[in-house]
Amino acid sequence: MKKASNMMIAQSGGPSMVINASMVGAVMTVRKFFGKKIGKIYGARHGIAGILGRDYIDLRKVPEKKMWDISRTPSSALGSCRLKPTADDCRRIFQEFKRLGVGYFFYIGGNDSADAARIVGEEAEKEGYPLVVYHIPKTIDNDLRSCDHTPGYGSAARFVATAIMGDDLDNRALGGVKIDVIMGRDAGFLTAASALARRRPDDGPHLIYFPEIPFSPDKFARDVKAAVKKFGRCVVAVSEGIRDANGESIGAKFAGGEKDSHGNVQMSGTGALGDYLAKIVKEKAGVKRVRADTFGYLQRSFPGIASETDLTEAAMAGSTAVIAALAAAAGNSATPTKGTIGIVRKKAKKYKVDYVALPAEAAAKYTRSLPKEFIAKNGHDVTPAFLEYARPLVGELPFCETL
Amino acid sequence: MKKASNMMIAQSGGPSMVINASMVGAVMTVRKFFGKKIGKIYGARHGIAGILGRDYIDLRKVPEKKMWDISRTPSSALGSCRLKPTADDCRRIFQEFKRLGVGYFFYIGGNDSADAARIVGEEAEKEGYPLVVYHIPKTIDNDLRSCDHTPGYGSAARFVATAIMGDDLDNRALGGVKIDVIMGRDAGFLTAASALARRRPDDGPHLIYFPEIPFSPDKFARDVKAAVKKFGRCVVAVSEGIRDANGESIGAKFAGGEKDSHGNVQMSGTGALGDYLAKIVKEKAGVKRVRADTFGYLQRSFPGIASETDLTEAAMAGSTAVIAALAAAAGNSATPTKGTIGIVRKKAKKYKVDYVALPAEAAAKYTRSLPKEFIAKNGHDVTPAFLEYARPLVGELPFCETL
Repeated sequence: MKKASNMMIAQSGGPSMVINASMVGAVMTVRKFFGKKIGKIYGARHGIAGILGRDYIDLRKVPEKKMWDISRTPSSALGSCRLKPTADDCRRIFQEFKRLGVGYFFYIGGNDSADAARIVGEEAEKEGYPLVVYHIPKTIDNDLRSCDHTPGYGSAARFVATAIMGDDLDNRALGGVKIDVIMGRDAGFLTAASALARRRPDDGPHLIYFPEIPFSPDKFARDVKAAVKKFGRCVVAVSEGIRDANGESIGAKFAGGEKDSHGNVQMSGTGALGDYLAKIVKEKAGVKRVRADTFGYLQRSFPGIASETDLTEAAMAGSTAVIAALAAAAGNSATPTKGTIGIVRKKAKKYKVDYVALPAEAAAKYTRSLPKEFIAKNGHDVTPAFLEYARPLVGELPFCETL
Repeated sequence: MKKASNMMIAQSGGPSMVINASMVGAVMTVRKFFGKKIGKIYGARHGIAGILGRDYIDLRKVPEKKMWDISRTPSSALGSCRLKPTADDCRRIFQEFKRLGVGYFFYIGGNDSADAARIVGEEAEKEGYPLVVYHIPKTIDNDLRSCDHTPGYGSAARFVATAIMGDDLDNRALGGVKIDVIMGRDAGFLTAASALARRRPDDGPHLIYFPEIPFSPDKFARDVKAAVKKFGRCVVAVSEGIRDANGESIGAKFAGGEKDSHGNVQMSGTGALGDYLAKIVKEKAGVKRVRADTFGYLQRSFPGIASETDLTEAAMAGSTAVIAALAAAAGNSATPTKGTIGIVRKKAKKYKVDYVALPAEAAAKYTRSLPKEFIAKNGHDVTPAFLEYARPLVGELPFCETL
C-alpha cells in the first residue's frame, strides 16, 4: 500500500449545499497536513463515471482561495452521477487506480453512494487490490443510519423552514389553502423541518404529512377543512414521498416512472403531486383559493443560505475521513480500511458532536425513517422532541413580525 | 379638510418582500414628523375589504421596535385583497371615512391597486367627500408605467437570480435540461433577472422566454436541442406569462381559470406549465433527464433575502406619499390630491433615484412590458442594457465558484 499513495475523491447522488465543504475538507486536510503521506489528489468528475471515463481534475493545483470559495458553493463542484458499479466496472476502476497509483478512495454521497463505495471496497478485496475506501456522508433527506444527522440536512432544513415562514406570511395576507411539497423520498425529516418556521400559536404549517404515515385523501380533506375552520386559512407541508395505505408512492404515479441504476424512481422536478393535492382540497374540502408550490431543487442548491453548523460538520466529516483512512493504512486495527464517517451527538446541554469511523456497511443501502417519537400522535405534526433535535442543525432563522 | 385629519393605510394585491417597508415608511413618517397634521393612523386589514368590514388596527399604538421589525418582514402585514371597488363600495367607504374622520387614504399595491385608489379618488370627488388619496407603488412584476422600477421587484429579482445561480450549479452536477418557471403575468422583467445569475460564459440560464415574445413549442424544442449540443446541458428560465402566437396565455390553460375581480386569471400556485414544457423537451428535443420547477410564491415572500436598495426605496416611496399628500392638502397646486409616487432614475454614473408625485392615472390599470432594448435579438435572452438596468436594484449576489 506504500507505493499507491495517491488519492481519488468524487461526489455522487443529489447535490447539497455543503457537499463541497466535505470535498474541500478532505482535500485541504491532505494538502495542509498530510502532503507526504498522500501524493496526488485526483478529483473524478461525475463520480464513478469520471473514473470509468478518465475525467479528472488535479486538486492539488487548484488555488487555496478557490478551494475555500468552492467549500461555500452549493451543488457538487466535481459533478455527480447516480451509478451502481458492477463487478466489471470495479475491475476497470482498479486498473485505473493502478495506473494512477491510487491507494485511497473517498466517495461523498448518500446511502446509494455509500453502497457504491462498499461495493468498490468489497471488489477490491476480492481482486486483491490494496485500497482504503471511505464514504463521506451527505444527504438532505437525513436518512443515513450511521449519523445522528447527515451533512446537507441542516442547510436544506434551513431553506425549508425559511421558505415556509415566508409562505405562511403570504398565506396570512391572502388566505385560502397553500400546499408546499417538500423533498424526501423515504424519510420525513426535511418535511418535518417546516415546523421550525413557527413562532406564534397560529403560524403555519398547520398540517405536515410524512412518508412514514399512510396518506389518505379523505382524511387529508377533513384535516384541511378543520384547519381552515380553526385558523381561517391553512398552510400544508407535505413530503414528496407520501404513500398510500399499501405503501405505494403517490407522487411517483405522476412523475413519469424514470429510474436510476439504484432503482430509485424520479420524484422531484415535477409539480404534479402538488396539483393533485390542490385538486383534492378544492373538490373534497370545498375551499376556493388553493395554491400548491413544489419547492424542488432550490432546497438543496440555494446559494448563501447554508447552515453554518452544517458547513462546519460537512468539512469535519471530510477531514475525519482522511485521518481515518490514514490511520487504517498505518495499521490501526480499530479503524476499518473500508469505512464511513458517523456523526454522533454528545449527551450534553450544549449542542456538540463527535466524528467516528464506522465499517462501510453502516451507511450503505438501508435508510432511516423519521422516528416515532418525532411524529405527533395525530400523524400530521412533529413533537417537541423533533424541534429540539433539529434546531441546532438549522441555526437561527430570519426574524419575522406580524401585526 | 382640516377636520378630517386622520389617515387610513392599506395593502392590496400580491405581497412582496418590501411592501411592509412602504407601509412602515408612511406610518413612521407621520408618527415621527407629522404627528400634529395627521391624527389617528388606521391600518385596514385586507385592503379595501377591511374598510368595508370595519376591520382596523391602530398603527400609532404598535411599538416602534415592532414597526421596524415589520418593515423587514416579507408579505403584507396588514393582509391583502384583490378587490375592485364599485361606486357603491366607494359610498360605503366614504361613510366609514366620515365616521372615522379620515382625510388621507394610502393604498399600497400594483396597477390594479392603483386603479382601485384612482376609483376611490374619482368617486370621492363625485360625492364631494374631501379626500387626499395616494397610491404607493409595489409589484414584483415591475410593470408599473409610473416607475423606472417598482419597489418589490429588486428583491424578487434577487431571489430569482440567486435561485437560478444555485440551480445552474445543480444542473452542472447532474446534467440534462432544467426548466424554471418564474412569475410575471404580463411582463418579463422578473424572468429577465435570471440572467443576473451568470458569471462564466457557460453559466445558465441558457435560454430565457418572456411573455413579450410569442412562444412556439417547436422553436423551444429546437432551442433546447441546440443549447444541449453547445453546453452539454441546459437551464431554461421561462415566464409563467408566456403566450402563443395568438397572444393567448399558455399557462392559464392549465391553471383552472380562476379570476379575481380585476379580471386577472390565476397563474401561480400550480406546476402544470413547467410539466407541460418538460414534456415538450422529452418528446420533441429527445432529452432524457428533464426536470421542471415552478418557483412560485417563494419569489415574493422569502425572508432574509430582500435587496437593501429595494427595502430603502420602498420605505422612501411610503414616506414620500405622506409628504406629497400633506403638500396637496396644504394647497400646493403642483402636487395632486389624487396621486401616486413615481421613482425616477437619475442620469448619473452612480445609481441614484428620485421620488416624485404623479397624478393617480399614471400608475393605474395599464401595465408596462419589458422594453425591446432589453430583449436580445434571438428573442430568448436579455441584452447588456438590461443587466446594467437591473444590477443596482438587486445588489451583490452570493459568490459561487466552479472547478
